[in-house]
Amino acid sequence: MEMAERTYILAPIGIIHSDLMNREAAPRQGYEGAPEAWVEIYSDVADGLLGIGSGAEIIVITWLDRAQRDVLQVRPGRNPNAPLTGVFAPRSPDRPNPIGLHRVTILEIAGLRLKVGPIEAIDGTPVIDIKPDPTRSADR
Amino acid sequence: MEMAERTYILAPIGIIHSDLMNREAAPRQGYEGAPEAWVEIYSDVADGLLGIGSGAEIIVITWLDRAQRDVLQVRPGRNPNAPLTGVFAPRSPDRPNPIGLHRVTILEIAGLRLKVGPIEAIDGTPVIDIKPDPTRSADR
Repeated sequence: MEMAERTYILAPIGIIHSDLMNREAAPRQGYEGAPEAWVEIYSDVADGLLGIGSGAEIIVITWLDRAQRDVLQVRPGRNPNAPLTGVFAPRSPDRPNPIGLHRVTILEIAGLRLKVGPIEAIDGTPVIDIKPDPTRSADR
Repeated sequence: MEMAERTYILAPIGIIHSDLMNREAAPRQGYEGAPEAWVEIYSDVADGLLGIGSGAEIIVITWLDRAQRDVLQVRPGRNPNAPLTGVFAPRSPDRPNPIGLHRVTILEIAGLRLKVGPIEAIDGTPVIDIKPDPTRSADR
């Protein structure tokens, strides 16, 4: 079939502040020793935080802006001997729309900053959405 | 803090074909009686499907193109008596970047079409990414 007929504009709602400074330093998954980080929410969307509290289990959705968007197949796990796999099968950051999903707990809220963890996103990564964790919460 | 410094362009990788024709007909959550649907993957990203098989538990990520992006607070559950809540707390489709997360099982694969379910996304919804379900799979 044909390509997408139209495109859409993403405007980040916030940004990650982390001690992880680059992809090489980042664990592949949040549970592989990832650190805590701060999600800074931009003031123009701050009203969207009403009702979010410390202790909440959420999904932070990021735009992995340092990923390669023209990659369709990878060898997962940074393993040169692994078989080539389509980027939609593993969690590789390289993919046409480099969206990252991070299941985290909110550890602290300080104004427009949410301390969350564990999260493998690197410093400066744009945040594009926050949602309740679908595996923890029913209809909210 | 300031607004986002820059924006990003999303190019859909596919589209939902569903019997759900509008938001009013859609259940609020996939598990509330949502139907099966077909995800059509565009041919230019077809190589990204290598290694995805029937039976896989995946997250289909959509762009809820009929949502309102200028809404920051809602009354969840379509309940006019519910207290106002920020859009980042519930799963409301209305939010600055209307990203939908759908945990589904691949029921069948036919060429570039994946039959999945249950899924509450409506017909014509753009698909922007597919990932393994983080609650089912470890490092892949």
